[in-house]
Amino acid sequence: MRTSPATAPRGLLATRRLLDPALRCAIARLDPTTRQVASYHFGWTEADGTPCSSDGGKAVRPTLTLLGARAVGAEPARAVPAAVAVELVHNFSLLHDDLMDGDTQRRHRTTVWAQWGPATAILAGDALLALSQEVLLEVPGPTGPAAARTLAVATRELIRGQVQDMAFEGRPEVTVDQVLAMAEGKTAALLSAAACLGAVLVGAPQDHVDALADYGRHLGLAFQLVDDVLGIWGDPTITGKPARSDLRARKTSLPVARVIGCGGAAGVEVAAWLRAPQEDTEERLVQVAALLDAAGGQEWARSESAAHAEAAAAALAGLPAHDDVRAELLGLAEFVVGRVQ
Amino acid sequence: MRTSPATAPRGLLATRRLLDPALRCAIARLDPTTRQVASYHFGWTEADGTPCSSDGGKAVRPTLTLLGARAVGAEPARAVPAAVAVELVHNFSLLHDDLMDGDTQRRHRTTVWAQWGPATAILAGDALLALSQEVLLEVPGPTGPAAARTLAVATRELIRGQVQDMAFEGRPEVTVDQVLAMAEGKTAALLSAAACLGAVLVGAPQDHVDALADYGRHLGLAFQLVDDVLGIWGDPTITGKPARSDLRARKTSLPVARVIGCGGAAGVEVAAWLRAPQEDTEERLVQVAALLDAAGGQEWARSESAAHAEAAAAALAGLPAHDDVRAELLGLAEFVVGRVQ
Repeated sequence: MRTSPATAPRGLLATRRLLDPALRCAIARLDPTTRQVASYHFGWTEADGTPCSSDGGKAVRPTLTLLGARAVGAEPARAVPAAVAVELVHNFSLLHDDLMDGDTQRRHRTTVWAQWGPATAILAGDALLALSQEVLLEVPGPTGPAAARTLAVATRELIRGQVQDMAFEGRPEVTVDQVLAMAEGKTAALLSAAACLGAVLVGAPQDHVDALADYGRHLGLAFQLVDDVLGIWGDPTITGKPARSDLRARKTSLPVARVIGCGGAAGVEVAAWLRAPQEDTEERLVQVAALLDAAGGQEWARSESAAHAEAAAAALAGLPAHDDVRAELLGLAEFVVGRVQ
Repeated sequence: MRTSPATAPRGLLATRRLLDPALRCAIARLDPTTRQVASYHFGWTEADGTPCSSDGGKAVRPTLTLLGARAVGAEPARAVPAAVAVELVHNFSLLHDDLMDGDTQRRHRTTVWAQWGPATAILAGDALLALSQEVLLEVPGPTGPAAARTLAVATRELIRGQVQDMAFEGRPEVTVDQVLAMAEGKTAALLSAAACLGAVLVGAPQDHVDALADYGRHLGLAFQLVDDVLGIWGDPTITGKPARSDLRARKTSLPVARVIGCGGAAGVEVAAWLRAPQEDTEERLVQVAALLDAAGGQEWARSESAAHAEAAAAALAGLPAHDDVRAELLGLAEFVVGRVQ
């Protein structure tokens, strides 16, 4: 996820008050070394262990989890173990992805693997993944295991998406449908689980759980489409990532697959560029970005993103949520899409 | 675990008949890429996907799980999901450890990271870890979640042990007690979980579960002591590992910590060698191995290993196990210690 130019909705900030004490409590059971690494990664300490208060991320996923519980009429406090577990899985994936992608910066700090080496990042990620299950399985009653199972399945999907994302790089024959299926795993699966996991944990009826899962899935796809737009046309001073980073990595992102899939001169040229293994000049990348834009890649992705945000909103229709909760869930969808509009 | 010169007990072979179909069924849910990687790792296929029947490991842990169920009077078939989950966690740790240790060979084949790169090994390991929870959480009733929680805690301990093992390298000030505490995590935690997890899944009384966990813990410590002896004095034609590999890696293994802890001329010399960062000649390693032996390091480790094997046997006293099951559990303990005696 890229840093957003828009102001985060109020709910994202309120989440921290409920989430952080429980998250710190979970991390406290890890061995001292892994605890120090995780505390640094979450922005609680410097690398040497000195307390600080750095950016720990926007907490979109745990916010969704707490909102999901409120949407089915439950106290958000009851969903805290689910919010903690979701945040642990998200950060497990960040720790491993940063290493696999060779990214040296996250949240304006050195990434864990760049700070302590690959083994430390692998083990810290592993520890957070195992801990996510432990936290849910300690909740008394049958809903903890149900939530743990939902999260384990979402984790499998998340891993599938990451595997496919890496396999798709530099391959112009990959279709929009294949990239969407990849994004359903890489991005939508955990957002979907995040949206419904609080409701699962408080024992909400299945149709409410399904509605929230559907909302989260569409939110995830809207999110990925926006992320793909930012990865090609985003302003680096706002995204905090290098300009045109997805082009440099030759990612078969959704706008790229769309333009190639539409064929024509632009599609043929983009496919040829994607297949070519040589390094690009900055000038060439600017040219490819303009070509993709002129061929309608950006407009299509923005419009698809808006459509998924609308579908997310529509999924909330059958929920017993109070107006304020509904407004917060809709606000989150707007926030996601609003990053580019 | 090193390949053993001794013949594996009969139970290790019988396990495969119950375990393999369920393990293959679990692996079949993974995405095609990860499925291919896992199938290769388990010895079912070549790297290109051609079916084969290579060495998939001795299946010590799932054997323990099935024996544990029999020891409390249950059909071993009922414990199969626990055996699958234990084998998944063990292989998750092998995939990540081989990468972290830079090992290019396992079971006489190229390791996954050496075959497909680090990212593939990281993701395949992650997938097996998530799947281990899924498999247990699908078991109807309350015992599946109880087993999932036991396994998640053991995984946390396993990771702690691996973190400490890496931190201890080249550090002569580490005590025998600290190395034992590390081994309780790295080796004993999963063997302990393996021994009791079948009993947990079939709903055995807590004192029987505890007895099996205790048996597995002592078995694990006996195992580690033997492994440490083989890592210094093992015959490479039998262990399948280079001679003196633990010395070359400057591991503060149990015999090394013991000799240093006893002080005297040998302890001082070993500590100085361990601290020195330069590469060793083969001659120097032979010298250090002889020094450790003369100072009683080997004899101590063998005798401690035998004591833990006896404690493992004693832990079985209160179980309702039939004589044949008890004999198999005792046979496993003898098998572990017998690798060096």
